[in-house]
Amino acid sequence: MKINVLLTPSNLDELSFSGKTTVIIDVLRATSTIVSALNNGAKEIIPVASVEFAVKVSGGMFGGLTLLGGERNTKKIEGFALGNSPLEYSSRLVKGKSIILFTTNGTKAVVKAKFSKNLYICSFLNLSAMADHINSMDTDIEILCAGRNNSFSLEDTVCAGKLISEILKNKKDLELSDTAQASIALNKSFGKNLFKMLCETEHGKLLLENGFEEDIKFCSKLNTIHAIPCFSGNVVKLLVRE
Amino acid sequence: MKINVLLTPSNLDELSFSGKTTVIIDVLRATSTIVSALNNGAKEIIPVASVEFAVKVSGGMFGGLTLLGGERNTKKIEGFALGNSPLEYSSRLVKGKSIILFTTNGTKAVVKAKFSKNLYICSFLNLSAMADHINSMDTDIEILCAGRNNSFSLEDTVCAGKLISEILKNKKDLELSDTAQASIALNKSFGKNLFKMLCETEHGKLLLENGFEEDIKFCSKLNTIHAIPCFSGNVVKLLVRE
Repeated sequence: MKINVLLTPSNLDELSFSGKTTVIIDVLRATSTIVSALNNGAKEIIPVASVEFAVKVSGGMFGGLTLLGGERNTKKIEGFALGNSPLEYSSRLVKGKSIILFTTNGTKAVVKAKFSKNLYICSFLNLSAMADHINSMDTDIEILCAGRNNSFSLEDTVCAGKLISEILKNKKDLELSDTAQASIALNKSFGKNLFKMLCETEHGKLLLENGFEEDIKFCSKLNTIHAIPCFSGNVVKLLVRE
Repeated sequence: MKINVLLTPSNLDELSFSGKTTVIIDVLRATSTIVSALNNGAKEIIPVASVEFAVKVSGGMFGGLTLLGGERNTKKIEGFALGNSPLEYSSRLVKGKSIILFTTNGTKAVVKAKFSKNLYICSFLNLSAMADHINSMDTDIEILCAGRNNSFSLEDTVCAGKLISEILKNKKDLELSDTAQASIALNKSFGKNLFKMLCETEHGKLLLENGFEEDIKFCSKLNTIHAIPCFSGNVVKLLVRE
């Protein structure tokens, strides 16, 4: 069983994901938001790679059952019902709804990896659930960090490293790529106090400046949600386990 | 003073380097080879981004004073005088010579960063000399890791982290990007036994398979050469310090 970490979606071809098992991580905030929204009863998340496509898709759906969510430059998009703050996606608002979601990095990464055989959504919130599921699968894994504007982001890589470390507790014979080894080391260095780490990253600082400290607090909580969002047929739903 | 690390040359525009001070790192083996060749008396290194251009440039130069060097898939290119092994670049062979060099990652990275205001070549061999020079400059620094086929390479990032750690010994008020912080952490995790680290990276394993253990040993030596190769006017020469 091999594990590789893709530090950014930059320069990756969509077709390179064909047949693979991929885990997407965008800690601040898209994958934390998806995990949270589905856990709060949203029917499904429809990740899209452009605002225009989000609006187009929403036009063909029934009103009331569909919500538009997402951000540009950390802020809610004009005319959208929801931003990209996981705290907005409360049970009251999202229960039973289809949510069309556009975010600068996270949903684009999901769409890029859409040809994967298995495609999962991971954050600190559902990390141990994800690790358990991967251990039950026994297949090679690509962890795709959404990064920031096609560049490296420390928080996604630390989350990847923590996920691999969790998998390693039950599987000793993993073959780790350079990036997988680096991610484990970065989790050891930065992964002890997740809230502090998130506040000190470039993306974290930008969110703090824009008043999103509560979001950072929420996204830093480890293993609070036992759920595995899974992309299939262009939507993300919770995996129903036997 | 800000320090940023570019983990790969992928997706970078040549013009983005305009006016910047850039340090190129390709531990295995291009920057180690350049440092070594110049230290052994080579007049200059002419880094090129394609084999075709290497042959073209060499055609316009006087025979005897020019050597063609480089590799493809770790091996010497047919018809070239030298490969990409630093051990080949002995005083006897290179003294007074202009060397046109093509390598898969390193020389391409140098050419990509050619519009930098200051452009330096770093490896473990000349790391402390490089750090001293940067400290004397007091300017923002971009460290460009050549990586491997446009992907992350652990050895280049560890070298970047060690360079920053060395700079930090004399400068405490550095502003560090996420990648700079990550590089420092990776040097702490992997930078104690450089030979062991190099042997265990993906690129190191490939070189071992191809019989280049002595090269890895040579490239792992820290601070054995007190020289700073500097790119200017399309050639790399040793910086003459006042």
